[in-house]
Amino acid sequence: MILVNTGDGKGKTTSALGLAIRAQGGGFKVCVIQYLKSPKVKTGEREFLLKNGIELHTMGIGFSWQKTEGEQLSALSGAWELTKERLADPSYDLVVLDEINNVFATKDFDWRKVMPFEEVLELLRSHDKSRNVILTGRNAPEELIELADLVTEMRCIKHYYDNGIPAAKGLEF
Amino acid sequence: MILVNTGDGKGKTTSALGLAIRAQGGGFKVCVIQYLKSPKVKTGEREFLLKNGIELHTMGIGFSWQKTEGEQLSALSGAWELTKERLADPSYDLVVLDEINNVFATKDFDWRKVMPFEEVLELLRSHDKSRNVILTGRNAPEELIELADLVTEMRCIKHYYDNGIPAAKGLEF
Repeated sequence: MILVNTGDGKGKTTSALGLAIRAQGGGFKVCVIQYLKSPKVKTGEREFLLKNGIELHTMGIGFSWQKTEGEQLSALSGAWELTKERLADPSYDLVVLDEINNVFATKDFDWRKVMPFEEVLELLRSHDKSRNVILTGRNAPEELIELADLVTEMRCIKHYYDNGIPAAKGLEF
Repeated sequence: MILVNTGDGKGKTTSALGLAIRAQGGGFKVCVIQYLKSPKVKTGEREFLLKNGIELHTMGIGFSWQKTEGEQLSALSGAWELTKERLADPSYDLVVLDEINNVFATKDFDWRKVMPFEEVLELLRSHDKSRNVILTGRNAPEELIELADLVTEMRCIKHYYDNGIPAAKGLEF
């Protein structure tokens, strides 16, 4: 099935990671592909997952003014090729495409050059229903929501940022 | 800080577990207390977390007509005593109180007998801001939302149940 975690609230990525450990704990084969996060940035989830045998590929280079379109497209191309490989491999029960929705929403570079949107939709549409794919990130495109089996919106009801408290290590990275 | 994951959508528990692994991966000390789930029911998350060194206490007996109020209160009392111990212990950076909101919302037994609501609120209100507590479950009470620093509502936008597909192993347990 195709699952989407979207919305402006917290929990899109963490919930996908929670599902990944639940699935792996249940004996399913799991792969997590992070589209935007860079392996150069140390995160708690990366440390934990790599240490505990979850297949994780952190393939982004971050959104940054210092990156050229060429660099972004090259990183994205790698993530997309790997995604196609994993979805084609019937041994994988769950593939997490973390923050891929943010790629669809970006205007910083022309992601369609290496990941044509119709190709993405077709791959998901034709995916074996007995295996699961989770796409996370805010602003999930309408076409994706339409074809998905499960869509959850994480809504921010109240946030400590509003009280001037900055990003908290352990909670956000 | 006090965090609440509520709403009728998926991702309340899984997101808290994702935060737990992120925090533990970042070197923080974590404890997960499951208020409703019973250790007799095998779940993927339980297998994974126990195997990979996350402190997990599955202390419920499930919501069931076959349980007496006495049995429910005895289980709840254990979970609540442990919660007070862990929150009082400054070495714990993150404590997850999984599905505790469902307890506050139940009318199946008089949970206030062993866990007076004012005592819960007072404990959370006075909790050291540099350490985090996450409370999950639908129907979080208004008083809890008021004192929380971060509240996220998981909203179900689209669900495969609506297409007649039953609960899926690996995704829901």
